Amino acid sequence: MEATAQGVDEAVRAAHAARGALADRTVRAAFLRTAADRLEGAKDRLVELADAETALGATRLTGELARTCYQLRSFADIVDEGAYLDVVINHPDDTATPPIPDLRRYKVPLGVVAVYSASNFPFAFSVAGGDTASALGAGCPVVVKAHPDHPGLSEQVAAELRAAAAEHGIPEGVVGLVHGFEAGVELVKHPLVAAAGFTGSVRGGRALFDAAAARPVPIPFHGELGSLNPVVVTEAAAAERAEAIGAGLAGSMTLGVGQFCVKPGLVLAPAGEAGDKLVESLSSAVADVDAGVLLDHRMRDNFLAGVTERAELPGVEAPVAAGPGDDEHTVRPGFLTVPADRLAVEGGEHELLLEECFGPLTVVARYADDGEAKALLGRLPGNLTATVHLSEAEAAGEGRGAEILAELTPLAGRVLVNGWPTGVAVAPAQHHGGPYPATTSTSTSVGGTAIERWLRPVAYQGAPEALLPPELRDDNPLGVPRRFNGVLER
Amino acid sequence: MEATAQGVDEAVRAAHAARGALADRTVRAAFLRTAADRLEGAKDRLVELADAETALGATRLTGELARTCYQLRSFADIVDEGAYLDVVINHPDDTATPPIPDLRRYKVPLGVVAVYSASNFPFAFSVAGGDTASALGAGCPVVVKAHPDHPGLSEQVAAELRAAAAEHGIPEGVVGLVHGFEAGVELVKHPLVAAAGFTGSVRGGRALFDAAAARPVPIPFHGELGSLNPVVVTEAAAAERAEAIGAGLAGSMTLGVGQFCVKPGLVLAPAGEAGDKLVESLSSAVADVDAGVLLDHRMRDNFLAGVTERAELPGVEAPVAAGPGDDEHTVRPGFLTVPADRLAVEGGEHELLLEECFGPLTVVARYADDGEAKALLGRLPGNLTATVHLSEAEAAGEGRGAEILAELTPLAGRVLVNGWPTGVAVAPAQHHGGPYPATTSTSTSVGGTAIERWLRPVAYQGAPEALLPPELRDDNPLGVPRRFNGVLER
Repeated sequence: MEATAQGVDEAVRAAHAARGALADRTVRAAFLRTAADRLEGAKDRLVELADAETALGATRLTGELARTCYQLRSFADIVDEGAYLDVVINHPDDTATPPIPDLRRYKVPLGVVAVYSASNFPFAFSVAGGDTASALGAGCPVVVKAHPDHPGLSEQVAAELRAAAAEHGIPEGVVGLVHGFEAGVELVKHPLVAAAGFTGSVRGGRALFDAAAARPVPIPFHGELGSLNPVVVTEAAAAERAEAIGAGLAGSMTLGVGQFCVKPGLVLAPAGEAGDKLVESLSSAVADVDAGVLLDHRMRDNFLAGVTERAELPGVEAPVAAGPGDDEHTVRPGFLTVPADRLAVEGGEHELLLEECFGPLTVVARYADDGEAKALLGRLPGNLTATVHLSEAEAAGEGRGAEILAELTPLAGRVLVNGWPTGVAVAPAQHHGGPYPATTSTSTSVGGTAIERWLRPVAYQGAPEALLPPELRDDNPLGVPRRFNGVLER
Repeated sequence: MEATAQGVDEAVRAAHAARGALADRTVRAAFLRTAADRLEGAKDRLVELADAETALGATRLTGELARTCYQLRSFADIVDEGAYLDVVINHPDDTATPPIPDLRRYKVPLGVVAVYSASNFPFAFSVAGGDTASALGAGCPVVVKAHPDHPGLSEQVAAELRAAAAEHGIPEGVVGLVHGFEAGVELVKHPLVAAAGFTGSVRGGRALFDAAAARPVPIPFHGELGSLNPVVVTEAAAAERAEAIGAGLAGSMTLGVGQFCVKPGLVLAPAGEAGDKLVESLSSAVADVDAGVLLDHRMRDNFLAGVTERAELPGVEAPVAAGPGDDEHTVRPGFLTVPADRLAVEGGEHELLLEECFGPLTVVARYADDGEAKALLGRLPGNLTATVHLSEAEAAGEGRGAEILAELTPLAGRVLVNGWPTGVAVAPAQHHGGPYPATTSTSTSVGGTAIERWLRPVAYQGAPEALLPPELRDDNPLGVPRRFNGVLER
């Protein structure tokens, strides 16, 4: 049922009232682990429901649930370790200019976090996904705006999280859930909402970002919107292994019916023979991929319209044409080719090829020389990922390998060499974010540092040990990593 | 001379073109140290010019220049150490869900930073101030919007920074300088500007924040706007040392003619005898303070109007009336008292007392009991600082000390016990920021972590050692602190 403004208000107030119960790090970590246990315990029921609502298939959904539980437990470990608190302690120092008093800094939770779920990850970027796990880990209650593509699953997952909270004496309001477009708009405007996390489209995300910035008290809005995820294949790499690259690309761009935010959407391949072989390999591999069901009909309509509009541009060819499948639900994957120089003109009609087309389509831009490839890279908007395929010699340091890495770094939050961007690992070194429109902030929504989004620093000056939280006491009773009088202690 | 849109464009492009010259950390650190040396070398000339433009006095300005040089050298040390890069390395791990590939993350500079100078710190929050020092340290060129209250000094300081850059082979465009209101608006909208730092008023800062958020590609806007800096004096503290607290408060609120962003602007003092003694002590100390010159006539006009408007509110008294000095340039410090319950009504006419009045004025709200004090604290907007004065027993852990600290923490970025907020130390544990409107982000503009504002993370996946920056190589040739396969290494 769609929430009214009053329903949103109730959910936010209940979440806000629960924040004190999250203050203890030990309790929070245990809560996250219990949540993971409960989701695993309900696996069969949840996967069945998820498949009924999203058609993503039991195998993929079972894997995604496992990933979701892994995330919850990872954040429990991070909370236990306490390095994320960024504890810095300075004893008084009269030799500094001006003199330094006793100062002790760490990070505190921001308050209630609004979480906007994604359609394409009903577990891992939804009610119990990375935004929720990292926010709860930071000590922030959440109110989740359910995605309309899996409302029943959203309710069931929220119920498991609330039951887990109750096991640790945390009020169930710590995880709120609201449905409906209007509820989502109300949520980001609510005075007690202190920050927001979002995964979805550029259009929807930008509207909510604008609303967050326009509040009387603006709040951080961490949105992951859209990404082309360019891939550069060097001449030497194509000459060395065109077939393998074509086949790998086909696998990555059609994985999950192309519904990943890191799907490679633009490939810079060399003109000439080696590039031709790559296109041939891609053709035969993509032609072998079955039609698949997109998450909802709106997405299917957008995909088919996007494919048609792109395919009609001058100079664009479709070696394997994407399009509708044999029934009204499915789509067939495909790809387009275009000479890279067509994309060189700013504001031209080919600009559309530099926008994400959500679904199993990629665009192969054939470049005549390195200068043309570099010029095209310079025109790209921000991305979650940028990939380069290098030859063995280039990877070993010969030729332009390091130079291309430096060219790709300004474009993206993750730069891959000889790999594919799909399959986003949950790891401390992960960064899932990038220049706008990839994300609306410099933060990540995957990996350990995602917790930083929901915290702010506070420094205590001249506070007696008796009044300080244990994390800030000289004797460090909880053993948190810290910087103590300039020295990193671990 | 006020910069045109073309002048802004030229400055930004020159800064952007200089970014490559800042790529090397060793060069950057040396540049910052040379800049400090040069400013010190030009001390007499710069302080004289600064005093002529700001009337802040040679003593204060000499101290501020020393602080500015200390800041530049502190960031050089931070850049050398490299901990701010937040290096995280994960070797492949097939046991994770999903498996972890080789991932290596660190932070890269965002690009050109727009710096908006403050009026009240012509050195430390101006052309060579903390925003510039931290941005250059991060590897970001800057274009500074000069404050109109010290245009000549701004030019001279910029010239020293450029000369320092030239000594290290860095193009002089690395530090741009533009004058004029319109230039400031153009600057935040320029496509090549990647982030902004601001210190100033709520009105000006919010307008620029809104412009930054409304860009086609929004950018981070780190603004330090306004702050009341509440001070709570407990009944027991007032009973123990009313005189000392009154005298200390007088010193802090009149320091620099009350023109500090951390000036205590609202004091919660107990009703009754102990509080009366505090007010008496404050009265005699404030009455002893000479009239002083504000930074410009607009500020003087605003101050005098703000004092009058506040003093006329029902229930407000002025034991020492702030007002114009004996000539048309100066103002006399003063303070107001008001029963705290007058401030309990949301939207009432007393709401004005919860807004900053820039200059030597503070408001003493007399509370009848702890509940009244707590209710008033709950109504305050965000602050840079919040202070409590406790009795000896309370500081040792008796009574409500810890409770009050917990009540102040949500209000501010720095919480002080038995001290005064003026005199902001430059230290790793410092945090100079707070909930809006204190700052527009969760960052700090003073202290080591100010560098974090100008960076974004990038993760490299599967990149061969030969192509990686040395900071991300297994053998750690530069010895940067890092997290290596989960273990924190110094």
